[in-house]
Amino acid sequence: MNTANMSTPMQGLAQQLQQFADERQWGPYHSPKNLASALVVEAGELLEHFQWLTEAQSRELTPEKKQAVAHEMADVLLYLVQLSTAVGVDLMAAAQDKIVLNAQKYPVTCPVTPPASR
Amino acid sequence: MNTANMSTPMQGLAQQLQQFADERQWGPYHSPKNLASALVVEAGELLEHFQWLTEAQSRELTPEKKQAVAHEMADVLLYLVQLSTAVGVDLMAAAQDKIVLNAQKYPVTCPVTPPASR
Amino acid sequence: MNTANMSTPMQGLAQQLQQFADERQWGPYHSPKNLASALVVEAGELLEHFQWLTEAQSRELTPEKKQAVAHEMADVLLYLVQLSTAVGVDLMAAAQDKIVLNAQKYPVTCPVTPPASR
Amino acid sequence: MNTANMSTPMQGLAQQLQQFADERQWGPYHSPKNLASALVVEAGELLEHFQWLTEAQSRELTPEKKQAVAHEMADVLLYLVQLSTAVGVDLMAAAQDKIVLNAQKYPVTCPVTPPASR
Repeated sequence: MNTANMSTPMQGLAQQLQQFADERQWGPYHSPKNLASALVVEAGELLEHFQWLTEAQSRELTPEKKQAVAHEMADVLLYLVQLSTAVGVDLMAAAQDKIVLNAQKYPVTCPVTPPASR
Repeated sequence: MNTANMSTPMQGLAQQLQQFADERQWGPYHSPKNLASALVVEAGELLEHFQWLTEAQSRELTPEKKQAVAHEMADVLLYLVQLSTAVGVDLMAAAQDKIVLNAQKYPVTCPVTPPASR
Repeated sequence: MNTANMSTPMQGLAQQLQQFADERQWGPYHSPKNLASALVVEAGELLEHFQWLTEAQSRELTPEKKQAVAHEMADVLLYLVQLSTAVGVDLMAAAQDKIVLNAQKYPVTCPVTPPASR
Repeated sequence: MNTANMSTPMQGLAQQLQQFADERQWGPYHSPKNLASALVVEAGELLEHFQWLTEAQSRELTPEKKQAVAHEMADVLLYLVQLSTAVGVDLMAAAQDKIVLNAQKYPVTCPVTPPASR
């Protein structure tokens, strides 16, 4: 199978969202500054579902809660992808770069080291 | 080519991150509540790069700024993927569901309608 | 006038909120971790009112928008005050400490220096 | 004591911050849109101190952690006050209005009702 001209799922999603915004002439609203703001707002809506839950409760979500969380997670991803288009960043490549950096920052140790705030 | 057993790039990333966390025994720290918090924190670090820029300046990032923004976007994606594993949500499927919902919420109109806060 | 036993407005507000929560037995939910999460969620709701506005539009809010913004700002303050009670921090004193630190970090210069991301 | 011309502590803080910004000619950067963004960024830095702590650990902060949290809380308050000046909102009055609304939204019941996400 010749994959040379096939877009990845992430690229396909980016194109879908670009078309969605173009059809509605939302370009002027989609400055990177605004998209980053919208992303934070959605991240807050995602966190809201967990704010009064204990950590244990958060590991056992009801089906309704899981569905609501899925919607907010999708909202975050959609703005992240639109921002990646707006600033010209390859999200999946950036993810791989960050994993390499994280492996250096958090080497596997014995005994293990907890995650730390930066 | 038989694609039946091939994981998508997103699934591959999820497995990579699961292994990364397992090697460091970070499971106890990775409650969905904590992962959602970490995601919001990274989204704030992303927004920080834009807070004093005008919208116009945000459309013309310097190479250094673009690199810094790429790192923060990767951080957001990594927590989003780890959260999707923790709660059992298929991110790309949830994204498609949300696009369908958004198309109903924001139909293409003449004249066009600006994006509205929810 | 003997002010020795008079509480400041901020202390009065903190007592009001403590009583409000006690009457509803919300103590178990009000861990500092949860209160900090709730504060971020409200800050996101505040930002949502500005996400599609230009900076110029944000300087000329309609009365309805200004009222909505006032409510969200109050929500942020209420969680900030409840968090200050929960962790034992004097908010107004901490504000003065921070102003002193900021004056050292951003001395008045000629020509002036723009605010920078930390 | 004639209190007619005495400013409240909050008004005094607002004036202090206005002067601080004027001395540095930061006015052009302090659109309400930007101040709301900066507030969210600081709220995220505050949450970062709690993201890997359990709720129980968050109730027993070390002196260093408490100091760091105090600084971030002050950062949030400073932007909240600057935003209140920029949009013309009386923060303490808005707080009282919100308490009245909250009392209607969450009446004292028997048995008591937990706080709910909006």
